[in-house]
Amino acid sequence: MAFDPSTIRIVLVHPQTPENIGMAARAMKNCGLSRLVLVCPADFRSAAAYRPAMEAFPILEGAEVHPDLLLAIGNSRLVIGTTRRGGQDRSPLITPSDLVREVLPRAQGKEVSILFGAEKDGLSRDAVDRCDVLVTIPANPDFPSFNLAQAVLLVSYEIFRGTVAWRVGAEKPALASSRSREDLYRHLEALLHRIGFLHENHPGRILSTVRRLFGRAILEEREVRILRGILSQLEWALDQPRNEKGR
Amino acid sequence: MAFDPSTIRIVLVHPQTPENIGMAARAMKNCGLSRLVLVCPADFRSAAAYRPAMEAFPILEGAEVHPDLLLAIGNSRLVIGTTRRGGQDRSPLITPSDLVREVLPRAQGKEVSILFGAEKDGLSRDAVDRCDVLVTIPANPDFPSFNLAQAVLLVSYEIFRGTVAWRVGAEKPALASSRSREDLYRHLEALLHRIGFLHENHPGRILSTVRRLFGRAILEEREVRILRGILSQLEWALDQPRNEKGR
Repeated sequence: MAFDPSTIRIVLVHPQTPENIGMAARAMKNCGLSRLVLVCPADFRSAAAYRPAMEAFPILEGAEVHPDLLLAIGNSRLVIGTTRRGGQDRSPLITPSDLVREVLPRAQGKEVSILFGAEKDGLSRDAVDRCDVLVTIPANPDFPSFNLAQAVLLVSYEIFRGTVAWRVGAEKPALASSRSREDLYRHLEALLHRIGFLHENHPGRILSTVRRLFGRAILEEREVRILRGILSQLEWALDQPRNEKGR
Repeated sequence: MAFDPSTIRIVLVHPQTPENIGMAARAMKNCGLSRLVLVCPADFRSAAAYRPAMEAFPILEGAEVHPDLLLAIGNSRLVIGTTRRGGQDRSPLITPSDLVREVLPRAQGKEVSILFGAEKDGLSRDAVDRCDVLVTIPANPDFPSFNLAQAVLLVSYEIFRGTVAWRVGAEKPALASSRSREDLYRHLEALLHRIGFLHENHPGRILSTVRRLFGRAILEEREVRILRGILSQLEWALDQPRNEKGR
């Protein structure tokens, strides 16, 4: 891991709606962050904040609260501002993924504060002046303004992806070995010959089409077993005496 | 661009809170998406939905509303489900970035529906069975459950980042329509019933495994024809009188 997520502080500066504070806490927990810092917040010890926070309520309970920004960021090695406004004095703006890849590792294990401004106006000029790096979230130029909790989510999500080598489903299913795939293809080929399908239909092309199709699907061992089971049952059914009355 | 974002439909299945519907619309607009589809939604023509939607209110106004999921996805070339539950018959789960990089380009400009389940329980078993591909959002295993609008945002954001100049792949083969894929699955199901395979082997799981396997492969129309041809020939062979001397 290039940096330690426990060093990351999400700092909401003058957040105005308890719902957004609660939803931001939930997003943080979804992404493995836990240090919430609030500067002059709306009333977040309220049902309106706790309800959307759900299981992230300990993050609300443990939030640091400060009366002003300078006290909130005093110990941080690196202060990151999020903004959607560019401008000469704000350049360069980097993306959240650049932040995670290039900037956070440079904090070398020291505390990092990431600031999010108020819902209406974002970070003030003074707050922006306190930032070492400015981040902007790529967005539709027709409507680039993210909700506060949504912005916290997107930045937290990039951090999460940057800290964890994510693998879906801890117990990845076992992929079929090349041997069991070849056995499957041979089994299928034998059946198709038996029912006369290959003879009439350009055997080579049919078989390579089927092979490619299953190849694209990247078969699991379990799926090969099911398919082989189907083929065996078909062979068995073909061996059964016919009911002359038809089916 | 590997795909056209105007082909992407965000389908909320039984969304229960107007705030989430409005916030999802806002997230869509932030990320350049516009086609919202609602299946049995909570009252979204209300202030509770319009307030968080902000400038995305035209997305709410233009939302398609359907009484059930099948009507909502009938014309989609590809149906994507979002889920946080794994399990044998749901594997493999891919990430949103895999979806954007590997799966969406294969829709070749045809309509794609991305389904999000209700706040409380996610997508039902039946809805999952309709999906060609299942996506899960990487998250903290201690609290992996994203708010509905947050999940819509993360998937939309990946799509936004994945959209570049749209080019039509001239020589791409025609993909199978959802109708011909459904016909294929029904044909296969009938045959498996006939040979007694489904009866003994948990019909639901077998069928959804097969569906997902073919879903991953993104079948072409020509491949469906070949597979249907094989099924028909098998039925024909099963109808033939047996040679009592054996084969």
